[in-house]
Amino acid sequence: MTRFAWLCTTILLCSHGVAQLTGVGPASTNIPGAEFPRVNKDLSVTFKIKAEFAHSVQLLMELGQSTYEMSRDSSGLWEVTTKPLTTGFHYYAISVDGFASNDPGSRVFFAARKEVSGLEVPGAESEFFSIRDVPHGTLRTEWYRLNGTGQIRRIIVYTPPGYDQSHERYPVLYLLHGFGEDQAGWSEQGHENFILDNLIASGTAKPMIIVNENGMIDTEHQPPPPAGGPSRSSAIVTYFMNQRYALFDKIVSSELVPFIDTHFRTVPDRNHRALAGLSMGGSQALRIGLNHLDQFASLGAFSPAIHITDTRTDYDGSLEKASTINQQLKLLWIGIGRDDFLHSPVLESHEALERAGIKHVWIESSGAHVWTVWRRYLEDFAPRLFQ
Amino acid sequence: MTRFAWLCTTILLCSHGVAQLTGVGPASTNIPGAEFPRVNKDLSVTFKIKAEFAHSVQLLMELGQSTYEMSRDSSGLWEVTTKPLTTGFHYYAISVDGFASNDPGSRVFFAARKEVSGLEVPGAESEFFSIRDVPHGTLRTEWYRLNGTGQIRRIIVYTPPGYDQSHERYPVLYLLHGFGEDQAGWSEQGHENFILDNLIASGTAKPMIIVNENGMIDTEHQPPPPAGGPSRSSAIVTYFMNQRYALFDKIVSSELVPFIDTHFRTVPDRNHRALAGLSMGGSQALRIGLNHLDQFASLGAFSPAIHITDTRTDYDGSLEKASTINQQLKLLWIGIGRDDFLHSPVLESHEALERAGIKHVWIESSGAHVWTVWRRYLEDFAPRLFQ
Repeated sequence: MTRFAWLCTTILLCSHGVAQLTGVGPASTNIPGAEFPRVNKDLSVTFKIKAEFAHSVQLLMELGQSTYEMSRDSSGLWEVTTKPLTTGFHYYAISVDGFASNDPGSRVFFAARKEVSGLEVPGAESEFFSIRDVPHGTLRTEWYRLNGTGQIRRIIVYTPPGYDQSHERYPVLYLLHGFGEDQAGWSEQGHENFILDNLIASGTAKPMIIVNENGMIDTEHQPPPPAGGPSRSSAIVTYFMNQRYALFDKIVSSELVPFIDTHFRTVPDRNHRALAGLSMGGSQALRIGLNHLDQFASLGAFSPAIHITDTRTDYDGSLEKASTINQQLKLLWIGIGRDDFLHSPVLESHEALERAGIKHVWIESSGAHVWTVWRRYLEDFAPRLFQ
Repeated sequence: MTRFAWLCTTILLCSHGVAQLTGVGPASTNIPGAEFPRVNKDLSVTFKIKAEFAHSVQLLMELGQSTYEMSRDSSGLWEVTTKPLTTGFHYYAISVDGFASNDPGSRVFFAARKEVSGLEVPGAESEFFSIRDVPHGTLRTEWYRLNGTGQIRRIIVYTPPGYDQSHERYPVLYLLHGFGEDQAGWSEQGHENFILDNLIASGTAKPMIIVNENGMIDTEHQPPPPAGGPSRSSAIVTYFMNQRYALFDKIVSSELVPFIDTHFRTVPDRNHRALAGLSMGGSQALRIGLNHLDQFASLGAFSPAIHITDTRTDYDGSLEKASTINQQLKLLWIGIGRDDFLHSPVLESHEALERAGIKHVWIESSGAHVWTVWRRYLEDFAPRLFQ
């Protein structure tokens, strides 16, 4: 039996409901009962859309990075089968006469500041983020009120298996999403809960609490970051470096951390607190973390929107003293995919840290700027925490 | 200051994120930062869609029950302003050349077995389900495994404010959604958590746990219920009466209740357990509840898909002995709106129960088969429980 066949018969993938994935067939991200999109044996995927009166229908994969023309039959059913896709999570849209729509057959996920259809392509490497027959933690939605402004904010909190039954105190990972996503990204797209359930069940990671806040603070009412062009990566980094982090820094350090420490059984010290994020959230995690070394002893930057060139001046000089950073940080983790459009500025940031003698874990992986990579990064990062 | 103006200045409506509603302006159900749909002073709503290459764009309100033609400007922006809408929650879609799409400006909600755009129209009567500055409970997503089949199922559990900090035990309301929705309906569309937070804060309802399971069991892979026509209501009721309830009955009574009683601090007896639901879920609640009077002492049927004509034979004879029912049930609550397409069979059911001398609370309200009504029903039902 091949590893893939084994996977198909033993793993239940369950996203929103009770959908069970057996590899080939309706995608696990489908609406229960929807036959399409359908994953084929070679990991190509067949899409079918009923649009009787449309003149032109296209499949836009990865938010438009690759486009497939769909062809119409006599009844108005449009169909296309993609080339084999990579295992993992893909955003997509259906363009109906030029209007980007959701696929009625799929669940949606919040990305690029809208609700976007998502597709899970299965594979042997899906196991670590799949729902398996191990003890499951809880995903809690909590509301808390800022002392400063009175605003009521919604957060997602993962508590590990057994939290309710025990009297133990747990360490906390504050985990931030990327631009255009929200606090649900790490659970819905990222499967943070299943990743941790599985790591905890195998004894690979310490049981921990995970907290997801919404980092779309200053950017909410501002134009989106630059869309393309040859200098996109540096333009993106400049965009995020120029955002005013002050408000989100204050929310995380002065409001969120005290709320979590008073409402959950945490170990309320810096050694038992980590801060990490992806893309924009990676940039936020480094900046807020370096600004609050009294609160966080471990930092993670997953495909971060950073471009550190001079550690003496960048990040308001908070990287200036390598010896202080090395002494205070138990872990500084930076990862980037070789196909990521941010590869070059992140690689240069790594080299700048190396030159300055700032110790860090450096992961140069396969993959692009996608959730499939960030799930793997969490799988690598979490076991290094709180040891 | 009018009541409406007062509302606009004091209430923060916060659906998914941090969006704040001040009555007039972007709807509270919008994507953060999206200007449209926009609620006007007279509660008409203006929609704008960019669809440069579309030939015809329509707004379909309430899943197509009323249609507005949108008109195009020279840049490809389509716009329409509705007549004044009723306060509360509305499903809608944008039809682009005949293809029903989501509005990129709105959050979506799971209904009619797909992800559908939702619109909250504010008003003074929104207060009871709005997020207010009171202690907030938690919405937990939990996974549990059926002993029977090994299937892992996702449920939503509301725990009241203070649950984590106390050692008290709480009564439990099992609350079911309607056809084509899922276990998230009562929190996302229904705001069950804010309704209970507010009722508990004012001392009107006892603190309680609420549990939402997914009732789309037998119906998942079956054709949808009859769509229209003059005999739709009786056809719908027949459809739901004919579904095999056995599996869901077994899940609720033999697996869910024991899981909740072992994983939460409940008072594990019939007097502290209620079962209610809306539409299909109301039918399920009555049927399962009457079949398990040893487990549930209070039942609620909100706009239920029921048509009781003969209490001696309907529901497998479980209604036959009025004296037993009256003795065992602390509460039997049935409500229907005068504009609901199920009004007539539910009214006849009420009359059949009256004739048989089966005591029940009977609410004939304004409104149709919509969440706006079900939120009000929960506000009426919950304070009657566990007194």
